Formats: sequence, structure tokens, C-alpha cells
Amino acid sequence: MSKGITSRSEDYSQWYNDLVIKADLAENSAVRGCMVIKPYGYAIWERMQAILDKRFKETGHSNAYFPLFIPKSFFSKEASHVEGFATECAVVTHYRLKNDGSGNIIVDEDAKLEEELIVRPTSETIIWNTYKGWIESYRDLPILVNQWANVVRWEMRTRLFLRTAEFLWQEGHTAHATSEEAIAEAEQMLEVYADFAENTLAVPVVRGRKTENERFAGALDTFCIEALMQDGKALQAGTSHFLGQNFAKAFDVKFTSKEGKQEYVWATSWGVSTRLMGALIMAHSDDQGLVLPPKLAPIQVVIVPIYKTDEEKASIDTFVANLQAELKGKDISVKYDDRDTQRPGFKFAEWELKGVPVRVAVGARDMQNGTVELARRDKQTKETVAQEGLANTIEVLLEDIQQHIYQKAIDFRASHTTEVNSYDEFKQVIEGKGGFVSCHWDGTVETEKRVKEETKATIRCIPLDAKEEEGVCIFTGKPSSRRVLFAKAY
Amino acid sequence: MSKGITSRSEDYSQWYNDLVIKADLAENSAVRGCMVIKPYGYAIWERMQAILDKRFKETGHSNAYFPLFIPKSFFSKEASHVEGFATECAVVTHYRLKNDGSGNIIVDEDAKLEEELIVRPTSETIIWNTYKGWIESYRDLPILVNQWANVVRWEMRTRLFLRTAEFLWQEGHTAHATSEEAIAEAEQMLEVYADFAENTLAVPVVRGRKTENERFAGALDTFCIEALMQDGKALQAGTSHFLGQNFAKAFDVKFTSKEGKQEYVWATSWGVSTRLMGALIMAHSDDQGLVLPPKLAPIQVVIVPIYKTDEEKASIDTFVANLQAELKGKDISVKYDDRDTQRPGFKFAEWELKGVPVRVAVGARDMQNGTVELARRDKQTKETVAQEGLANTIEVLLEDIQQHIYQKAIDFRASHTTEVNSYDEFKQVIEGKGGFVSCHWDGTVETEKRVKEETKATIRCIPLDAKEEEGVCIFTGKPSSRRVLFAKAY
Repeated sequence: MSKGITSRSEDYSQWYNDLVIKADLAENSAVRGCMVIKPYGYAIWERMQAILDKRFKETGHSNAYFPLFIPKSFFSKEASHVEGFATECAVVTHYRLKNDGSGNIIVDEDAKLEEELIVRPTSETIIWNTYKGWIESYRDLPILVNQWANVVRWEMRTRLFLRTAEFLWQEGHTAHATSEEAIAEAEQMLEVYADFAENTLAVPVVRGRKTENERFAGALDTFCIEALMQDGKALQAGTSHFLGQNFAKAFDVKFTSKEGKQEYVWATSWGVSTRLMGALIMAHSDDQGLVLPPKLAPIQVVIVPIYKTDEEKASIDTFVANLQAELKGKDISVKYDDRDTQRPGFKFAEWELKGVPVRVAVGARDMQNGTVELARRDKQTKETVAQEGLANTIEVLLEDIQQHIYQKAIDFRASHTTEVNSYDEFKQVIEGKGGFVSCHWDGTVETEKRVKEETKATIRCIPLDAKEEEGVCIFTGKPSSRRVLFAKAY
Repeated sequence: MSKGITSRSEDYSQWYNDLVIKADLAENSAVRGCMVIKPYGYAIWERMQAILDKRFKETGHSNAYFPLFIPKSFFSKEASHVEGFATECAVVTHYRLKNDGSGNIIVDEDAKLEEELIVRPTSETIIWNTYKGWIESYRDLPILVNQWANVVRWEMRTRLFLRTAEFLWQEGHTAHATSEEAIAEAEQMLEVYADFAENTLAVPVVRGRKTENERFAGALDTFCIEALMQDGKALQAGTSHFLGQNFAKAFDVKFTSKEGKQEYVWATSWGVSTRLMGALIMAHSDDQGLVLPPKLAPIQVVIVPIYKTDEEKASIDTFVANLQAELKGKDISVKYDDRDTQRPGFKFAEWELKGVPVRVAVGARDMQNGTVELARRDKQTKETVAQEGLANTIEVLLEDIQQHIYQKAIDFRASHTTEVNSYDEFKQVIEGKGGFVSCHWDGTVETEKRVKEETKATIRCIPLDAKEEEGVCIFTGKPSSRRVLFAKAY
């Protein structure tokens, strides 16, 4: 098969788009900015969901579901929140269509809503309005709830998975009796995300906090994980917010403390979205197609038979049936691609494009020799191995692939993280190889904005593990006590 | 605890509302007709999802995701479809809010959409517009896709779970090369639903087909499963539609057949929703609260310690830790309720209200005797049993409870299904004990409508297993060749 994928060196952005389309992950829909997530792409998202959901439950959270619509008045109650989201909201104004009498279907103006409804861009407001009814005393706290849902943000420039008008995500919303407990929750969920990114997505991340300028609208503190893509641009892969008492005050949610006092409740929210699909694709894939870490691959092993006669096929079938059973016993997902409408070479290319980590090819000669050809997608290498113990060999290989993909991403990040001490150096790196640039900054929004205007680089985060270090801001020369990470970003 | 639940005999409808609220399943939100599904309710829905999703995958389906919004013009392409849904659509007309200059947040009239977007009430139109790009030849068929999503139908009278403006559901949408294959798919999915209702929900259902008048808007044939609630009203628990070529024609989706001809594609769609929660509640629960079949109970076993001293508690704790481990090993979900803020009687009432199938109470004397008190929620009986082998005892008991709940519902339905041969008898039953009424009908929409006007009863379905039988319509006396089922319905 002809893959028709632009190479990364030629046009990284086009490579990404080609890959998403050709690997059957997603496509643009007829609705501006909204995507269709195709079955193969959705299967990867489902694996992400399953693993994250398990971790949320292990850390004491339950799922719930809140309305898609938010009354406009709710939305306006938290000042910085409405400021952050008002310009990108889908607004429902009517609840009925009608026939205009000459056969055209039009909006029925008699069915205008008294108050417009906003399609949720995030659910803090509707959820805190609900929590008001759930919380009376400290005994009702903490509330540890998560929601899997669709949200809509009317983005003007969209890209499949990375920035779409509608996307899928989870949003955790927790309520606590103390500030300390809420901060600990926000930090805990950041670590859940970081661990997921590193051990499941095989994407190393920097754990950090956002500057005031980049905080979530309504948060006192936004923690984030930042990943690096192969083109040297950063991608924010998840955020966890300490919301203080902002939403409790906006919705008047108080509780009676152990000491009998009325106090406002403390809040967090945290989320990751289908954007992670973009991170996954851009972190690992190559010019031949997707490279999927085994832990997320919907198909971990594909088996392709190579035969000329029915007898040869029958003998291979028997062998494969046993292998499949053994692999399934190890919880390894396997597909036997014995379509007779396609040649082996076509199948190899197709599964390579779709990022299946391990390919087993088995032919008549292999059957005589007691061998198979085993190919790994990540390194694009293959070797002849024994049929005996093959399920174990594959199990070990999958582990090795997961590790290798992760290590490769770590190495890439290491070679694309640069400490600089002057603005000239800064610009040279940002406009050159890109990546994370670690440097001193004077802590002002103004400097941050000016650097962004001049270089398009933004402060991705103040790393949580940043050491105290005397220095001077690369832009203003003013004193600084720790380095921050700049990068161009998605 | 005071449960505050109205009894069924006093006011069935109020009993239902009380139960949904008091058992923490769901509540009304601030948005008209939209509900909040609370964690305990959502946990039951998640179990339904998991079991159904597994069955969909076992029958060859994959999940995917399509846009929330549908352009108005798409929606209008299939004539009977738009007629069925136009009067209950939420319409998005703008994509931005703004500050009006004096601090009020208003809809920005400069951000009016060129074409209004409908919030999906069902996704046939947007999906068939997408399928057009996926299908060229018979090799691309069948497409077997399911979507888990929220949908919106602007209902005027809403009730938690049973009829809400926004609800959660799954919608399968399949594309086939032949009419036969599509009909077989629709029938297969009906059977998946029926099996799920009976073996998981423990709700017996009648498999049938809808009359022309009750068909899905755009379908050639609608298959359904109909369940009976304790008040004698029927509830449609799932539908599976044979759509013929209606949507393929509306969206011009053709394929090249094996013979090289251009033909329109054949379609099905099928869905169940959070309405099933309503069916589950109304089929089994009693005046003390929920009764959950073990297969859907988020907590299958609750253990309550009864003690006076710390020593007694410590001894019980040790016993319980072992029991919990054993139960978890059998994949039985268990909660140890050792809150020291509530008395055992309060806990008993709370878990009874929440429908936990099995309760284990263990006190100091039990520890001496090597016994526990084992209570089953469905029969509200309890007995003293040995600690030895308790995990096995519980495992067997859970099976028995599942069966017993189902049998009870079967018996209820049997005693509330009545064959009648005259309109007088018909009215007497419908206005009396209710339930399914099996009778002859002349096959006309007119008769169906008149019976509905006079009695509020509708034809729930023409049962698939209905025998050929000569008879006369109870209303018009015209000849009829098989009986149909009438009932008042939710």
C-alpha cells in the first residue's frame, strides 16, 4: 500500500495531519472544528480512559454526570472564569424548529429560551451550584467526583485532537474542608497524570506550576505536566487546579466546621482530554506511521501468514490458533490477519502505519524450521525466533518496546532541554532546535508577554523540582531566584 | 434513619421520585429538564455500560465518536426524521458571549452562526453524512459502530431517568450491503438487549415490533423490548431499527456491489439509555428502598460490625479483613461500614434504602459462636450462618437473589398479562389492574389512535412470538390474524 504520509523533515505539521487521517484515527466532520473519532482512534482513547479511570477510583474518586448546559447567569458568577471562556462559547437560544409553511425547516422564534444556555466549556459553575445542595457540614466533605464528558470551546483554528471545538475529556471536581487538603488533592492528581503519561503513554513530562498569566480562569494555582514533541514544541498534557474558595464564594457553598463555624469550601479541578491522543502521536511516531506504546495499542500483536497452498495455510492456521490462545491467556491482544484479498507486503505496511508494536510473520519454511519472523515496530527491526516459547518471547518483547519508546523520548527531551543565561542564547535556541529552554525570569507578566511577542515562546511552567538559584532575568536583567521553562507550544 | 419514602400503594409516582432522590441516584439540576446523575446512580449506570459494551464488542462492534452538533440542513434531509424530532431540538445560534459595556454578560450578536446547529437528539444524520466518505465498495461493508454519548430532546414534561431533556445512551449505527443482513443485525441487537434486560437487570421483556404509528422517525421497522413495571404500566426498554435505505438515500451513500453495480447501503440503528435506570428501579424496588439485582449492584455485600469495646472491634476487624479478601477474590464487591459516627440500625436502614443485596452483621457474640447474621435485601429475611465457608455461602446467595428477583418479576408479569376479546373487557383491565392486554386489532392507525384517546393505552408491540390466530378487532370487529399487546406506558 502507498502510505501517502509527508515526512517529518519536509513538513511536520502536514506529517501529523496525514498520520491522523491515514492511520484511521480521526477526521474532520461537516461541523466546523468538530472531529469524528474513528474506531481505531477511539480504541486507543478507550484504553486511556480505562487506565485513568482505574487510577481515579484507586485514589478514592467516583464518577458522576452533570448537565451539558449551563445557564448564562451561572457562568457569569465567577468573574475571571467568565472572562476566560466567554469568547469561545456555543450558545443555545431556542428549543424548537418548525416548518415555515413553504417546506423549509427554520428555527421557531416562538421557542426562544428565557435565559440562554451555554454548552459547557468546563463544568465548575454547574457543579458548584450542585454541590451547594450536597454540603452542609464537614461530614459531607471531601467530595471526590470525576466526570467523563464532552465539552465545547469555540476555537477559531482547530487541529484534529490538538484543538477542536468539541473534545472529550474527564474533569475532576473536588470539595474540601481545608486549603491544605485541597492543595494535596491537586498535587496528588498531578502525580496521577504524570505517572500515566510516563508509564502508559511513554511520554516523559515536566511537573510544574503555571505562571499567573497562564493559570486556569478562576484558579489560585494551576499545576501542569508538560511534554515535548519531536518538532521541539511543548504540549500541555494535563492540568490540576487549586481553586481556593473562588467557586464556593461565587455559589455560596459553606460548611459547618468541626468547631461549629460556617466556612467556605475549598476546591480543586483537574482534567485531561483527547488532546493526549495528539501528544501520543507526536511524541513517538515516525515517517512510516504510528508508533504506539504496547500499553495503549488496541492490537499489540499482528500475525500474518505467508503461504501458497491450502495445506500450507491449514498448517499455519493450527499453529496460530495455539499462539493466539496463549497470548490471550497473557492478556495480550492479538489479531490474525489472514485476509485473502491482500498480499503480505500490503499487510505489513498497513499494520506498520497503524503502529502495531509486534508483527509475527509465519510461512511454510518457518513451519518446517519451527521458527517465525518477529518484527518490532519501534526499531523497525526483525529477527527469526523459535516457535517454542514464542508467547513468552513476545511478552518480554512488548515490555522492552514500552521501555525503549520511553527511553527514546527521554533522550530526545534531554538533548532538547537547554540552559541559557542570555536573551541572545535564548532566541538562538528557540528559533533553532527548539525544545525546552531553562532560564531566569523576573517573575512579571509584562516580561512574559514581551518575550512571547518577540519569540512566540511561552513559560510552560515553573518546574516543581526547580532549585533555588541566584540569577538574573534574561530579558530585563532583574534578579531571579529560580529557572523556569520556556518553549514554543501547541 | 428516617427514610421519608412515600409508599407505592399511596402514590406510586411519588414513591419513585422519593426513591431516586433518597437513594442518591439522581436529582434535578438548575437546568430545566436536565438531571445530575449522582455517584451512586452513576455507578449502576457504569455497570450497565460495561456489560453492554462487552456484548457489543463480542458481536463485532467498535466504538467511535461523532459530533454533538448537527447542521440544520443535515437534519432536514430525511423527511420523516425531521418531522419526528424538530419540535424538541436545542438550537445553537451563536458562538460567543460578551460584556455589554456596563458589566452584563450578553450574547454577542456579531457571533451569529451562518447555519444553526442542532444539539443531537440522535445521530443518524451526522453519521450517515460521515459514512458517505467511508464507503465505496462492498469491501467496506459492513460498518459496525456504536457510540456512547449524551443526547438532548427538549421534552416538556420530564421525570428523573424516565424522560429528561438530556440523557445518556448508546446508539449503534450499522451499514450493510443487503437488506437481509441489516434486518439480521437489527434482530441480533434486539436479542442482545433482551438478554441483558433479563439476565442482568432481571427484568423480563416482550420482544416485539412496533406498529407503523409507533416506529422510529425514519425507520422501516422498529423492534423493541417492553417491560412491565409494578404499577402495571409498560416501559419501552430498548429499540432496534431497520432503517432500510432511507438514510443512504438522504445522504447519497452508495457502494459498488460484487457484481459491479452502484447500490444504496442498508442501515440499522439501535439504542438503550439511562431510562434503563428507571426500569430497574420501578421493576424491583419496594417501600423500604431500592432492590438491586446483584449483577448491577455497585456494592454487593455490606458488612456492619456490632461492638461495645475496642477489643471486640479489633477481633471483628480481623475477621472482616479475611472475609473481604476472600470475597474480592471471587470478584464480589464488598464494603465494610465501620463508621463510628452512626449506629448499626441507621446503617441497616441506609443500605436497605440503597438496595445492597446482602448484609452481614457481626457482633461479639457471633465471634464467640463462629457465626454471623446474614440478611438478604430482596426477601427482607435474615438468618444466622456459620463463619466457616461464609464467602461461598454469600456467593451462592447472590446467585439465588438474582434468580429470585427475576422470577418475582416474571410472576408479576404473568399475573398482569390478560387476554381479552371485547372492548369492555379491555377497558376494564386497562382501567383496573393494568398490565399487558393481549387482544386482536384491525391493523389500522386510526383504531390505534382512537383506543389511545379513549383509554390512554397504546400498542406496545406486536410480539415476535405471536401465533397466527383468527380473531376480530376488539374495537371495530374487523378481522385480525394475530394478537398485539396494549398497555398504558411510561
